[in-house]
Amino acid sequence: MSTLLFDQFLSTDAMAAVFDGPHLLQCMLDFEAALAEAEAAEGLIPPAAARVIRDACQIDAFDVAEIARASRSAGSVAIPLVKALTQRTASLDAEAARHVHKGSTSQDVIDSGNALVTREALALIDASLTRLIDRLQVLAREHAATPVLARTLLQPATVTTLGFKMLGWIAPLRRSRDALTELADSALALQLGGAVGTLSALGDKGPAVARRMAQSLGLALPDGCWHTQRDSWMRLGAEVGILTGTLGKIATDLALMAQGEVGELAEPSGGGRGGSSAMPHKRNPVSSMIALAAAHRAPARVGALLGCMAQAHERGLGDWQAEMAEWPGLFLGAHGALEALNEAFAGLQVDTDRMRANIDALLGLVFAEAASAVLAQAIGRADAHHEMEALSREAVASRTHLLALTLARVQASDALRDHVDEASLRRAFSPDHAARHAAELARQHLANLPSSSDPRA
Amino acid sequence: MSTLLFDQFLSTDAMAAVFDGPHLLQCMLDFEAALAEAEAAEGLIPPAAARVIRDACQIDAFDVAEIARASRSAGSVAIPLVKALTQRTASLDAEAARHVHKGSTSQDVIDSGNALVTREALALIDASLTRLIDRLQVLAREHAATPVLARTLLQPATVTTLGFKMLGWIAPLRRSRDALTELADSALALQLGGAVGTLSALGDKGPAVARRMAQSLGLALPDGCWHTQRDSWMRLGAEVGILTGTLGKIATDLALMAQGEVGELAEPSGGGRGGSSAMPHKRNPVSSMIALAAAHRAPARVGALLGCMAQAHERGLGDWQAEMAEWPGLFLGAHGALEALNEAFAGLQVDTDRMRANIDALLGLVFAEAASAVLAQAIGRADAHHEMEALSREAVASRTHLLALTLARVQASDALRDHVDEASLRRAFSPDHAARHAAELARQHLANLPSSSDPRA
Amino acid sequence: MSTLLFDQFLSTDAMAAVFDGPHLLQCMLDFEAALAEAEAAEGLIPPAAARVIRDACQIDAFDVAEIARASRSAGSVAIPLVKALTQRTASLDAEAARHVHKGSTSQDVIDSGNALVTREALALIDASLTRLIDRLQVLAREHAATPVLARTLLQPATVTTLGFKMLGWIAPLRRSRDALTELADSALALQLGGAVGTLSALGDKGPAVARRMAQSLGLALPDGCWHTQRDSWMRLGAEVGILTGTLGKIATDLALMAQGEVGELAEPSGGGRGGSSAMPHKRNPVSSMIALAAAHRAPARVGALLGCMAQAHERGLGDWQAEMAEWPGLFLGAHGALEALNEAFAGLQVDTDRMRANIDALLGLVFAEAASAVLAQAIGRADAHHEMEALSREAVASRTHLLALTLARVQASDALRDHVDEASLRRAFSPDHAARHAAELARQHLANLPSSSDPRA
Amino acid sequence: MSTLLFDQFLSTDAMAAVFDGPHLLQCMLDFEAALAEAEAAEGLIPPAAARVIRDACQIDAFDVAEIARASRSAGSVAIPLVKALTQRTASLDAEAARHVHKGSTSQDVIDSGNALVTREALALIDASLTRLIDRLQVLAREHAATPVLARTLLQPATVTTLGFKMLGWIAPLRRSRDALTELADSALALQLGGAVGTLSALGDKGPAVARRMAQSLGLALPDGCWHTQRDSWMRLGAEVGILTGTLGKIATDLALMAQGEVGELAEPSGGGRGGSSAMPHKRNPVSSMIALAAAHRAPARVGALLGCMAQAHERGLGDWQAEMAEWPGLFLGAHGALEALNEAFAGLQVDTDRMRANIDALLGLVFAEAASAVLAQAIGRADAHHEMEALSREAVASRTHLLALTLARVQASDALRDHVDEASLRRAFSPDHAARHAAELARQHLANLPSSSDPRA
Repeated sequence: MSTLLFDQFLSTDAMAAVFDGPHLLQCMLDFEAALAEAEAAEGLIPPAAARVIRDACQIDAFDVAEIARASRSAGSVAIPLVKALTQRTASLDAEAARHVHKGSTSQDVIDSGNALVTREALALIDASLTRLIDRLQVLAREHAATPVLARTLLQPATVTTLGFKMLGWIAPLRRSRDALTELADSALALQLGGAVGTLSALGDKGPAVARRMAQSLGLALPDGCWHTQRDSWMRLGAEVGILTGTLGKIATDLALMAQGEVGELAEPSGGGRGGSSAMPHKRNPVSSMIALAAAHRAPARVGALLGCMAQAHERGLGDWQAEMAEWPGLFLGAHGALEALNEAFAGLQVDTDRMRANIDALLGLVFAEAASAVLAQAIGRADAHHEMEALSREAVASRTHLLALTLARVQASDALRDHVDEASLRRAFSPDHAARHAAELARQHLANLPSSSDPRA
Repeated sequence: MSTLLFDQFLSTDAMAAVFDGPHLLQCMLDFEAALAEAEAAEGLIPPAAARVIRDACQIDAFDVAEIARASRSAGSVAIPLVKALTQRTASLDAEAARHVHKGSTSQDVIDSGNALVTREALALIDASLTRLIDRLQVLAREHAATPVLARTLLQPATVTTLGFKMLGWIAPLRRSRDALTELADSALALQLGGAVGTLSALGDKGPAVARRMAQSLGLALPDGCWHTQRDSWMRLGAEVGILTGTLGKIATDLALMAQGEVGELAEPSGGGRGGSSAMPHKRNPVSSMIALAAAHRAPARVGALLGCMAQAHERGLGDWQAEMAEWPGLFLGAHGALEALNEAFAGLQVDTDRMRANIDALLGLVFAEAASAVLAQAIGRADAHHEMEALSREAVASRTHLLALTLARVQASDALRDHVDEASLRRAFSPDHAARHAAELARQHLANLPSSSDPRA
Repeated sequence: MSTLLFDQFLSTDAMAAVFDGPHLLQCMLDFEAALAEAEAAEGLIPPAAARVIRDACQIDAFDVAEIARASRSAGSVAIPLVKALTQRTASLDAEAARHVHKGSTSQDVIDSGNALVTREALALIDASLTRLIDRLQVLAREHAATPVLARTLLQPATVTTLGFKMLGWIAPLRRSRDALTELADSALALQLGGAVGTLSALGDKGPAVARRMAQSLGLALPDGCWHTQRDSWMRLGAEVGILTGTLGKIATDLALMAQGEVGELAEPSGGGRGGSSAMPHKRNPVSSMIALAAAHRAPARVGALLGCMAQAHERGLGDWQAEMAEWPGLFLGAHGALEALNEAFAGLQVDTDRMRANIDALLGLVFAEAASAVLAQAIGRADAHHEMEALSREAVASRTHLLALTLARVQASDALRDHVDEASLRRAFSPDHAARHAAELARQHLANLPSSSDPRA
Repeated sequence: MSTLLFDQFLSTDAMAAVFDGPHLLQCMLDFEAALAEAEAAEGLIPPAAARVIRDACQIDAFDVAEIARASRSAGSVAIPLVKALTQRTASLDAEAARHVHKGSTSQDVIDSGNALVTREALALIDASLTRLIDRLQVLAREHAATPVLARTLLQPATVTTLGFKMLGWIAPLRRSRDALTELADSALALQLGGAVGTLSALGDKGPAVARRMAQSLGLALPDGCWHTQRDSWMRLGAEVGILTGTLGKIATDLALMAQGEVGELAEPSGGGRGGSSAMPHKRNPVSSMIALAAAHRAPARVGALLGCMAQAHERGLGDWQAEMAEWPGLFLGAHGALEALNEAFAGLQVDTDRMRANIDALLGLVFAEAASAVLAQAIGRADAHHEMEALSREAVASRTHLLALTLARVQASDALRDHVDEASLRRAFSPDHAARHAAELARQHLANLPSSSDPRA
């Protein structure tokens, strides 16, 4: 395992394996093999040499720890890797060793290797994201009409439905999935520029070699090298950060609704999940915790990445190296968060009674806006608003239900008595009535969603 | 002027005017007017009331300072604004005042107002960006074949051309321009959700009102409200950060090439530009300075924005408000940087003699790779690399030109003498020869670029 | 007013006035006056000239807008300011004008000016912070023994007291106040280095001039100039960020305890405070909102400042300028947050009945740890923990109080029946009993606190 | 090895070992052993049990991978660790197992464990920092009077000395060393609060147990627990960030002075250090690279840490966990940077001839301020400044030395001819003369520095 204890805890084994040192080095060797083969196909090196190089490109045969150690004084992990590959190739065929890494440079190897592992990282994210979207859509459908308090500025506002709320979680997840797919098309690009981006050591065969390599590695073929043009790469990283922000928003809502005093949702428990070493009764929302941790870390990481963009001339000093090191954390965190939420929603406990009870406990206050609209027909929006503000204060002070106070006020007021329909007023205080627009919007929205089997249709 | 001294200094008056308080409030009033008109068109309020409201929506008639003051205890600038609008409308027509802001909420007003000013901000950025791209293309064309040192890790590497280098500046600028245009299409969206996003106070006319408003305000019509779904907005902000990073990269290169000891490029001088209060001879690269300052600030700002995404439930507490406050800085900085670089490149001084002199001063070291390739034909890539490393060390130690040392070494070596072509070796040390691939790639690249008159073709 | 609308809303007029352009420029003029006087005292310029320069250093006589405009092409606000001062001085006495700014450089003026305004900013913060600490100490004393739920990971944990909780808010506020005082001693330092930090234009009188200036301006005299040694300055900025983080923590607790479903604390209401444009009943926690907004913004700002530290050679390009521009925001945000919380706590509503009711509503679950300790005497810590975990699950499932279930379990168990004292077990379920250690610790802590009249004793 | 490839490359093995999972878990076990012993000493558990627990606290006997795995669903690494410890203890003595972890909570274990490993991390940093300071002081002494160009805004300014410049590197390093020592005194504190910070499960022995534990673990004894009061911890983290910023500043200067076109300093080379896979002549400044990479990463990390401060109530959800995970990176980066610079300065190549040649190549322009001072005696500061600006422009345009032009101008001007001393003017153009104040200040500064053998005297 190649991550620190507290990173490991917040990510997944699958994603850690993607960014594991030996695997990353293998992807760099894949680049070297593809380079040799493309050069052979273009007549730059002998086909036999390319075959030997391909055979030598197996990370199992290398001393990974030694490469890591040597990379520090070399200033690049590619230098000892290429040196070791050259030796390994030479041990198979001395002539072939002369053709290793021809025309390329360290950054070509490293950036292309990073593109290859990032492709795998994105596949993991896409799968987890699709699962989360699908599950949330099932839940949204189920609870399209379930009334639940809407809350603004951490205060009860009015009534919405749980399904409507969940659709507000789903929409940005879908947009992120689409964006990641689109951005990957340009960001997962071959890096091939040679020493300074001009591919000069390949004569006029540079572009042809690049074309072949992009094809064989399954990477995009960019207009030119992107040694110090990191914008496409940054767009992809920023999108992972945005996705993580959305996951943090969902976890925030989930954790708040799971508070003991709210109790509307709960993460699954049992099997040691979310226990406490001190408190036997605790059921800690560990999925929310992991997603929130990721959401706390991703923004600074995106900031750090953007802060590495001003890479000097044809290769950066320090900034490019920092960028590489910051990169994996975004994906480790995002996947940890996705899988944590997948676990939470797979076993989500929904307490619809509690949702209704929480509405009832608020003395009708959250219907003040609806009541205000009824009164406004008689006395205008502003006066009705003031009227309901005063009655709301009274309800709180006297712990009396707002409906009772409002009915009394209507009776006592000449301006209201004959112009306010009591049935309308009573209806304004019904959770289901209050939730009807949310329910209707949720149904329309769900009807328009593509089926999960065709995620990006 | 509504920005602090050191912000003002790093931005432009034009962008400061976009985010100026009164202008932003006017855009919020435009939202209120459009809301009233759309509601009138849908039969929700009387057409006459909508006309009065529209007439009342002129910021000049409001006490802006008082609104700003009141916003602090209200917790939202929209609340005192709507209150003032209601009063203003009432002073024109008491009945009309009853219909102000119907069915909407503070966040609808504020987010839509922000979308409207951001549209203007993007127009300024697009114009400046187009100018910069056009100018850089002219320069790239002019210097497509001008040899200049390529530098990696702040060390001389080999030779490229100035035009090729500039094309590396242009490509990400073009991508950012395209991305901003595309992202604006979804990010510059109407916000209309009412109290908790369900538009319940508009009955079943909510979607129709939204459609009309998006149309009349020229904003996108989103799937639903985006009160706490900020991802599209974040994508736009992140892209401005990415653009700023690219501008920082260009400024880095420019400032490094303008160093006294390098002297290849210089920002225009004269008229007090870049003087020093202490040193009469100073010509400070003030455009680079402004662009670099923006590049130092934008990443943290994008990070701060992403860190505001986990907005609770139906409206955030503190995070949304922080997001709003962080937003303008990105645009102020980016436009300051763009206009600064436009000024720098409009009067750029290019010293092609110095470029050649800088190559010559390096004792042929930067041609070591090219010479290595010549030698490699005789003794393989790895041995040739070692050979040239040793000769390079000797050149540095003895301050002798590498070509002389290499020719001597070839003569002295049995393995090399008869297998190395002296003419090829000499040609490897010619700047123009070294630059030929860069020049050719630059020419091809320029041939494929769309003409500036059709920026997004 | 010199801040943007959404910044203004989150800060205070008092702090905005500190960083207002004209005021900052006046502080820079104070530097120039002190410089002239110190140079006169050291015999470097005529005393009469120093008097004229002092007279000329009145910002009211300058065209501030023109200075701001000119600063952009000059690359520094000090250059047009010094130019204008020279002209202004010349208009009073041509000879005196020859001695303006002698031996100094732009950065001396600007950094010293910033130190002077920052001293005022810190005074505002110290006053607000002292007020907040004093008020919280009063509340902590009042509620030292008031039982309230402790919550971990957003779940009910066990019982603490409100006073103990508040002491956990106070301690870091006190540490920040002390740290700011200590750090200001070194960070609020004179900047005087001349062109490149060597004071060479003052001959051997440089140190003496610096000594006099530090004395007259009331700034610390550093070992040398700190043109590109920004660490002391950063320490001060970071501490403001840390203070803001603590304020964010307090606001988080306050907002969570003010949730409708919790209702233990409430910010004061009335007079339009925290209203909603849509919902008449809303009482939004606007103080928490402002403090949370500051806490969302400060970390990235500290990050941006630290990211500006690698300033090249003897004066930075872009990084120093970005640092200056990022600086005020930290203080604007911190003071906004402090004053907001001062307002909240001045009128804080504490509902001790609700606190007790919230404990009661949890079916005794939060006493599981205490009950576990009673059982542990009979069966050991681990078994008791498992026992209470199982009973807690049963309590939740059956909605039965945990005490009843535990008593029944004790009776049913041979291992427990004769070894568990029922009175102890019942006592374990008493809020006051549970809170007794917190109450005792709070009392001890309060007894050790210095009285508020001597804040840093 | 427990760090990712690109992290490992930028840090040291020694620091990676400090934060390695098993070592961190051992430190947590040290906490458990100390807890048991303190509780035994206070009569809370049997002394024999404490001895068994101490014996069981050997990480070698635990399945670390399993603990890491289980921590994910538990939501805390301490839970499976305590569980495993309980089992391990039970295997030695069933009775003793009942007393494991008594009265404590997960966060006590984890925070205390982190304090213990951080103490080791700081020791490594202190040693490396002392070595760097000592070496730089030797170099500063050696080059106290060596003239070198001072540069502002990346442009040649005037002349300083290399020793003076290095003293500007040393001063903030010394301040950071002092600050780290001081901050560690309060930040490296025992965490002991029990479930919610009140130590209630220890009866009235809580404070006594804490006192004993702090003593035996060598940690500070805080006023109370700091579960959600993270300010002291943050101060320490921020200081590591500030130190890293200073290292970045040194690396910036070093890398800029090592540019091929400047050539004043060079990192040591040879033995594969700083080679290039493509370019045989390259000597990449790998130490600067590592330090710059750290400086790019640390600010965002400090920002992320500060962004985790608003931890709710008695234990945070997500923010505390993110804080833990962000923490090690600061130390890994800082130590990597320190050791890299130690390597660079141990073998630093200083080319004093090149320093003088770089001054000479600037046509006397950098002496314009000094010449201006000579002229100012005749015609005042402002006129002299204008005069030298014009002559500087002419020197650049005509590639003529400024001294020659100035002498000619003096002869041609009635205002200057008889009032300017030619010898003074000629002296103004001497590098050694120009450097004399810097040299003198450097000598004074060095005389005041404590000897390295007593680092904090």
